[in-house]
Amino acid sequence: MSSNSGQIENFKLVRADIQDRFISVTWSSGSKSLFPCVWLRDNCQSQDCFHPSTKSRLLTLDNIDTDEIPTNVKINCNNELEIVWKNNHVSLYKAEWLDKRRFEEDARKKRLTWLGTDMELWGSEMKNKVPVQQFQKILDDDNELYLWLRHLEKYGLVLIKDAPREVGQLNKLGQRVFFLRKTHYGETFQVKVKADPNNAAYTTGILNLHIDQCYYDYTPGVQMLHCIENEAEGGESEFCDGFHVVNQLKERFAEYFNILKSVDLDFMDIGTENNRKFHKIHRCPTICTNHKGEILKIMFNNAIRDSHIDCDAETALKIYESLKVFHKLLNDERNKISFKLKPGEIVCFHNFRVLHGRKAFKSNRNRHLEGAYIDWDEIHDKMRVLRSELNN
Amino acid sequence: MSSNSGQIENFKLVRADIQDRFISVTWSSGSKSLFPCVWLRDNCQSQDCFHPSTKSRLLTLDNIDTDEIPTNVKINCNNELEIVWKNNHVSLYKAEWLDKRRFEEDARKKRLTWLGTDMELWGSEMKNKVPVQQFQKILDDDNELYLWLRHLEKYGLVLIKDAPREVGQLNKLGQRVFFLRKTHYGETFQVKVKADPNNAAYTTGILNLHIDQCYYDYTPGVQMLHCIENEAEGGESEFCDGFHVVNQLKERFAEYFNILKSVDLDFMDIGTENNRKFHKIHRCPTICTNHKGEILKIMFNNAIRDSHIDCDAETALKIYESLKVFHKLLNDERNKISFKLKPGEIVCFHNFRVLHGRKAFKSNRNRHLEGAYIDWDEIHDKMRVLRSELNN
Repeated sequence: MSSNSGQIENFKLVRADIQDRFISVTWSSGSKSLFPCVWLRDNCQSQDCFHPSTKSRLLTLDNIDTDEIPTNVKINCNNELEIVWKNNHVSLYKAEWLDKRRFEEDARKKRLTWLGTDMELWGSEMKNKVPVQQFQKILDDDNELYLWLRHLEKYGLVLIKDAPREVGQLNKLGQRVFFLRKTHYGETFQVKVKADPNNAAYTTGILNLHIDQCYYDYTPGVQMLHCIENEAEGGESEFCDGFHVVNQLKERFAEYFNILKSVDLDFMDIGTENNRKFHKIHRCPTICTNHKGEILKIMFNNAIRDSHIDCDAETALKIYESLKVFHKLLNDERNKISFKLKPGEIVCFHNFRVLHGRKAFKSNRNRHLEGAYIDWDEIHDKMRVLRSELNN
Repeated sequence: MSSNSGQIENFKLVRADIQDRFISVTWSSGSKSLFPCVWLRDNCQSQDCFHPSTKSRLLTLDNIDTDEIPTNVKINCNNELEIVWKNNHVSLYKAEWLDKRRFEEDARKKRLTWLGTDMELWGSEMKNKVPVQQFQKILDDDNELYLWLRHLEKYGLVLIKDAPREVGQLNKLGQRVFFLRKTHYGETFQVKVKADPNNAAYTTGILNLHIDQCYYDYTPGVQMLHCIENEAEGGESEFCDGFHVVNQLKERFAEYFNILKSVDLDFMDIGTENNRKFHKIHRCPTICTNHKGEILKIMFNNAIRDSHIDCDAETALKIYESLKVFHKLLNDERNKISFKLKPGEIVCFHNFRVLHGRKAFKSNRNRHLEGAYIDWDEIHDKMRVLRSELNN
């Protein structure tokens, strides 16, 4: 910011006034911002109040008083808000620090860029726009790494090309972020036709559009599928932006949308992997929303939807009507894309949002994919670190 | 069940009738149960419809019709509901299988035992009732292992004694469940006084009652702290059942409860661990509830609560009032217990529910704890597997 005097000017503080339990600060632009006194006290950045290396608050909630009004406030010669409290403790707040934490909506919107909520929804027009990146570049170049993760955040779908045609490549991508997400299928899993399969992925059958691992409360955030061999006839991959389809459902079939976001279904996975038994059950609505009504994730996987349903028989009938309409929308040609993975390609997708499927194939020739997951907590973490380093 | 003829009698089916889009089955007790026809079709257990080794549904939502009525229904001589569908496909449903999936409330309540939702809330009376188990027994005996996990589910707090006084014991406990939960602090972390600490735990200061890792969307489910050395003066551990306190808040301070479950706060952790930078941010309410209003987890950690707040200044003031009241209730002597961990003890607690704290200590003598986490997905999984094996 130091190179931009215009921006510094915006951060110039000209006066500060006590207004009831708030401090009103006036910027050189003439605009005013209101900060609660208790928030200022709570966020004093002095070494007595905030630990510099742990970057954490030393003050406890006992140390602050929601009714405390400072004895003096002023803008000092360093362009800081300077507050003197009753016990003579002095707090200093830099103008830029305050600007970033303003309670006005424009400042709060800017903050969202750090939370990774920005996405661009898509339908079948995505067919010719799937972001494509080179495997080795992602390993070598932090800008490419950031771009990969940004594509995942924005579109929920990326195709990586020119990866070596052998297992172990997903570990390299995982390490570039931080670590792979482990499940009861391990850190990586091999999608091949297996005798006595414990998962539908290990058969030759069709896999309708679905979300992986709905039987986990902690559903893996991003899935990567690395195509090592794909000589079998058929087996094309399908992808659909579920958030885009949920918006259509909400608009056109409000009743079904309401049922799918409020009635729980159970998902389960029972079997043995590497000689260890597993028995997962997770109960959740098909469309998971938060306390603000925002869509968090879609939990839809017809194969492992459990026969137990926690509602009365009449509501259960409504659920089937809703699921059928949602399934039909997901599979509308205007909403999905399909392509056949080639050896050396890795498709990566947002597993809360982008449903994936596979057409049936003939097992006359070899087909081998390696799969792995990474969680969003670690992806967003890495993006913030890269953003600070790359000054994005 | 085969040894209990009384129970078999309860599962005896006597008749089946088509009623609009439902099948009404009559049990020998005289009671009736209603099942939607489409649910029966969807859950046909034949090998054409349900894959026996993957234990997953082969039928897709395209294959079922919410308006389809069977051409014939009857109870056959094997005590099964036998349905003939329009295309002559025959479905068979065992009486006991149907009984477990009845849509009546009593059957749905029984199902809850598999979901692990049963808990017993506590206050300071817990002081003399903390479940205590022996380390080696948990490693050796599946009944003790089940009991440990059941204690965690029910009380959210267990004290394990007589563990070797050296690092590495938590890995053994983790392996008994499945695997430890990794975070940016690693799979295990050493709680010691450190120079230039990156976390408040690594200082000698007080740690007020808090939840660990609120800056993760995927907050670790259970925390284990293994006391290896504890010769320092002070440093007693504190525990509080947060769900118990939330109920008090809801009852006595409904306005504050509503604010804490609806207004987001940000939590953050920025630093370097093992030469790797991390930058976590997570935004959520203090009291996280689901679409049914049930409390899922408490996200409360004053030290790493961020200075950014996503609301207007007036609401921010209300949040501080609410947080102070919640903090005061948490620290009410009637709501918390404290004890000093001894070398060889491992305290384990539900990290969504039981807040933990530490009194300040003098760094004149050695204090060393090893910490680790396990997620609930894996704990509930293991409990179900054990329950089936131990016939609990």
